[in-house]
Amino acid sequence: MKGFKFAGICAGIKKNGGKDLGLIYCEKPAAAAALFTRNKVMAAPVLLGKEKIKKGFCQAVLVNSGNANCFTGKKGIDDAITCSKLLGDCLDIDEDLVLVSSTGVIGANLPMDKFEAGIPEIVKHLSSEGMDDFADAILTTDTHRKIIKKTGEIRNKIFSIMGIAKGSGMIRPNMATMLAFICTDVDILPQDLKMCLSAANEKSFNRITIDGDTSTNDTLLALANGSSGVKINDTDSNIVFQNALDEVCFQLAKMVVKDGEGATKFVQIIVKGAETKEDAFKASEAIAHSNLVKTAIYGEDPNWGRITAAAGRSGAQVVPEKMDLFFDHQPLVLKGNWMGPEAEKKTAQIMKKNEIIITLDLNLGKETDRFLFCDFSENYVKINAEYRS
Amino acid sequence: MKGFKFAGICAGIKKNGGKDLGLIYCEKPAAAAALFTRNKVMAAPVLLGKEKIKKGFCQAVLVNSGNANCFTGKKGIDDAITCSKLLGDCLDIDEDLVLVSSTGVIGANLPMDKFEAGIPEIVKHLSSEGMDDFADAILTTDTHRKIIKKTGEIRNKIFSIMGIAKGSGMIRPNMATMLAFICTDVDILPQDLKMCLSAANEKSFNRITIDGDTSTNDTLLALANGSSGVKINDTDSNIVFQNALDEVCFQLAKMVVKDGEGATKFVQIIVKGAETKEDAFKASEAIAHSNLVKTAIYGEDPNWGRITAAAGRSGAQVVPEKMDLFFDHQPLVLKGNWMGPEAEKKTAQIMKKNEIIITLDLNLGKETDRFLFCDFSENYVKINAEYRS
Repeated sequence: MKGFKFAGICAGIKKNGGKDLGLIYCEKPAAAAALFTRNKVMAAPVLLGKEKIKKGFCQAVLVNSGNANCFTGKKGIDDAITCSKLLGDCLDIDEDLVLVSSTGVIGANLPMDKFEAGIPEIVKHLSSEGMDDFADAILTTDTHRKIIKKTGEIRNKIFSIMGIAKGSGMIRPNMATMLAFICTDVDILPQDLKMCLSAANEKSFNRITIDGDTSTNDTLLALANGSSGVKINDTDSNIVFQNALDEVCFQLAKMVVKDGEGATKFVQIIVKGAETKEDAFKASEAIAHSNLVKTAIYGEDPNWGRITAAAGRSGAQVVPEKMDLFFDHQPLVLKGNWMGPEAEKKTAQIMKKNEIIITLDLNLGKETDRFLFCDFSENYVKINAEYRS
Repeated sequence: MKGFKFAGICAGIKKNGGKDLGLIYCEKPAAAAALFTRNKVMAAPVLLGKEKIKKGFCQAVLVNSGNANCFTGKKGIDDAITCSKLLGDCLDIDEDLVLVSSTGVIGANLPMDKFEAGIPEIVKHLSSEGMDDFADAILTTDTHRKIIKKTGEIRNKIFSIMGIAKGSGMIRPNMATMLAFICTDVDILPQDLKMCLSAANEKSFNRITIDGDTSTNDTLLALANGSSGVKINDTDSNIVFQNALDEVCFQLAKMVVKDGEGATKFVQIIVKGAETKEDAFKASEAIAHSNLVKTAIYGEDPNWGRITAAAGRSGAQVVPEKMDLFFDHQPLVLKGNWMGPEAEKKTAQIMKKNEIIITLDLNLGKETDRFLFCDFSENYVKINAEYRS
């Protein structure tokens, strides 16, 4: 994409010697919008970023893995500012146009010597083809990089959107982080970009069981540099752009879930027929977060009792005798009645698949919501019991 | 305890051939109070019990394990009524004075032939020494029976309280159940017993991560037969009885947590210095329910970042720079600052213990709350992935 450059290097921040410092650089300041964690315990780069993003423009984003710079007090803030300044100097841009982002272990100060050496070095590696290196550098317990590209057409001109993310924890990331960076070449005002990003987020990252809004470092950042010449300035162009952005965010969110710690299966739970939107949200969220549902899916067990009971305790209005439950298109419960051993056998076959869609119809109204989640294996426990050791 | 008899037999309801039918019988109707699950999906015996308990008296309690009689529609209710009638006939008491309770797999009908044969049989086994058999018969994935006895003195007379419970799931029981039965020989009005039971429950079963109020079958039942002649009829006697009941419920709750599925450690999280009672509750609940905290404890890792971050996302008012965090009496974070490697080393030693008290002082006010929970091991996943197979 014209006007964007990327880099990713090993700066010695991670103990395992992998790539751990990433950089996105825009040749000219880009319109910028960001969404951050809602956790009251916020990492230093998030506190700083919330302020800086207010002016709506950004030219460079520095991301490190291996250290979250969270719960590091004033020193943490100072370190984040120092990194911004260092990078601003190296790129010869205003430090106000630099955002920093961190993911990794909480409570340890950034190893500043690594940044002092790494920042001048990473600038040398900037390249329009460097997105893979960048995507690798931001990973923690992810097993592979996550990049998605999409193009669209508005008024006979092509625009592009690229998304790069890291996930990690299945349920709540390792106190660390879901980070996602969107680069696009459309020409859009910062406030419009923010609205599009919020809408896309609501249908993607806010509907996965990473609890996107609660870890300390979560960040979703979008940069639009206008290099395609495609203006997003009316309803028609807005719809096309929004759809493309929705798709990029949804696919990234899906990649994050599929690579959840220890995950072996990817599941969509759709709750329909709810009386209110809130009920649909509550019921789908409760099911997606239930350890008992997750472990049953890992065991390839269509344990409908756990699913309906999770809906029952969710706070949503439910009537057991009205519930229908489907695994893919196979009904297992209709109007509260179990469909018998034959249906259970067919459902058990579906449970062997890697991707499953579970649909719970409450039959009480017209509202729907959806969550993406993964199963829960022994490996999740292993990864998270041993994370700091 | 005078006037109470117990029994527990193998009736063939459980696949593994263990004891699965239990009975408590009071020689005369006892004052009775009960608390049931708040899940909107309620098991048949809970629906029935909620009605029956309204009159405040009960003479016999029949409990089966192996089948929860939940999500079984009208047939489930009919079966529960049939069991009550059968037992009433065998004991020659009014069926209105019989309560039934079930725990086990959801969605399957009760094997009524086993009950038709088992009920006349179990009546023959009633004995004042039968509490161990009863306690065994109500277990599901518990690894041992849970009984606690306590005596107290009021106006120079001795009274007794006995509690028998079953737990199971660590976080949310297997769609099945926390069941607890309290037998006492005090003389108390049903409405007073209900108040005492609610108060005791609030400090015990409602503060463990079994999510006592959300599974489909949860039941806490108290029976008071007055056989000690100790009247609970004024403030002084009420306080003594309440304290004894609190202690019995707390110890039972503790036993349930310690025997949580796959649990290797028992933890108390105390949140103090909260601005409001609700904040103290929210923060302690969020920590006790966090999979990341639970897995870290399993890994003997004093991962304070996960604990403080759980408080941060709980919705409670918190200020990171004011937080103190202790493991037993060892401070690890003071005023938001990590106390360094020496403190971490000492804390790591404490983490090797089987029982740990974690104290988070928010330093914002005077309110306190407490949760009991256990760690989260690979074994939890194994038990719950394979539960129905």
